[in-house]
Amino acid sequence: MKIGRAITEGGSIIWCAKEDDNNIYKFDPNKKSLGECVKIKKLLPPVEPTKIVAVGLNYRDHAQEFNLEAPKEPIIFLKPPSSIIGPDEAIIYPKGVRRLDFEAELAIVISRRCKDITFESANDYILGYTCFNDVTARDIQIRDGQWTRAKAFDTFAPIGPWIVTDIKDVGNLKISSKLNNEVKQSSSTSNMIFNVYSLVSFISSIMTLEPSDVIATGTPSGVGSMSPGDVISIAIEGIGELKNRVIKG
Amino acid sequence: MKIGRAITEGGSIIWCAKEDDNNIYKFDPNKKSLGECVKIKKLLPPVEPTKIVAVGLNYRDHAQEFNLEAPKEPIIFLKPPSSIIGPDEAIIYPKGVRRLDFEAELAIVISRRCKDITFESANDYILGYTCFNDVTARDIQIRDGQWTRAKAFDTFAPIGPWIVTDIKDVGNLKISSKLNNEVKQSSSTSNMIFNVYSLVSFISSIMTLEPSDVIATGTPSGVGSMSPGDVISIAIEGIGELKNRVIKG
Repeated sequence: MKIGRAITEGGSIIWCAKEDDNNIYKFDPNKKSLGECVKIKKLLPPVEPTKIVAVGLNYRDHAQEFNLEAPKEPIIFLKPPSSIIGPDEAIIYPKGVRRLDFEAELAIVISRRCKDITFESANDYILGYTCFNDVTARDIQIRDGQWTRAKAFDTFAPIGPWIVTDIKDVGNLKISSKLNNEVKQSSSTSNMIFNVYSLVSFISSIMTLEPSDVIATGTPSGVGSMSPGDVISIAIEGIGELKNRVIKG
Repeated sequence: MKIGRAITEGGSIIWCAKEDDNNIYKFDPNKKSLGECVKIKKLLPPVEPTKIVAVGLNYRDHAQEFNLEAPKEPIIFLKPPSSIIGPDEAIIYPKGVRRLDFEAELAIVISRRCKDITFESANDYILGYTCFNDVTARDIQIRDGQWTRAKAFDTFAPIGPWIVTDIKDVGNLKISSKLNNEVKQSSSTSNMIFNVYSLVSFISSIMTLEPSDVIATGTPSGVGSMSPGDVISIAIEGIGELKNRVIKG
């Protein structure tokens, strides 16, 4: 099933779901049940997390591209909830930034509060998966050393369009990005250094995860820069495509 | 006025306030008005922020102690909301951590949603100030390079006890920490490299700040390590004292 949030044609904000490409239904996230069929005006970001935990250098091909050793433990950072935007919303290119990069990522969405989860039970705490773009002001990242500021600007966390709850093999999905329809990244989640269960277990050994919290699992090789006017799209097999236009801030 | 959150003797969670050391009153944060007198059982963290933005190396004396140049722009990082604890709650010393440090900090609490605030108008968006302890697993901070994991464990953000809304000169407050009653840090907010207005302006140029968001403004020299059983207390002139015991995780 695909779960999302949307504004209806009547202007209400609702949870919604679809089981095929035809109809969209109201969705009750507590009872996990479908309601009536609805017409939506616009999809919203599918989650409102209390935190976004992101992982650096988690693809073998990306670590190689930057000539960096694969890390022995996941390197984590946080993006603020204020950086989230939904599908088709604009990424704002901040004034003063010299290089703005896209980073295609698979995002894990947490279903239940959890702490100290084992690798084996991690899947019980995952609601589903969606597409994520870890937008990064590369020049600031290099200048600061610490990655937070470069990744924390408003609009730097496009996410969506839907949370997919029935992915069969999350360890073997094609992941790609296209800039203005030209393929820039093309890899597979099988190139992750730490897989999704290992990340949930590791991160939950540090901090309590809450329902709707997001873990962005790192990006494969081929990251590159964007300019105002560009359209960047992140596609993951079985999940969908997340498209956003870049505009001048 | 001092504003906080508490559990009453009847078990309800309330906003409360006090104007002197005698009585505590119910408080309406929207109308900013006092209600009836209440008896409280326990103070809670005085805020539930959507994000905690923290600033590294923001005291001249602390930068010198680590032989580091004063940064040209603030270096920021984020601590997750899951790391917050209130006064008198336990700091959990995580298994596997080899050095756990205290860092006494002045915290700014934001009053209203804001973005791109000037230095001159920053004070209009500050609700008040409170004490903060930026607890840090120093060995992990050094190992990771990125600071996030080291500062993100549950219980690593003690805050409180009260938000003080009528500080006259926030640029000239004594700030100190005591470990088991022995003074460890003793400085003044006048030693900040970037003052509170400059930090609000800088951070709001990156991200939208929400009501109750916290900015931890950095720590002076004298940081040191804690062991299970220790009591760490952070005191700031005109604000109060934040005391927490360390326990084994």
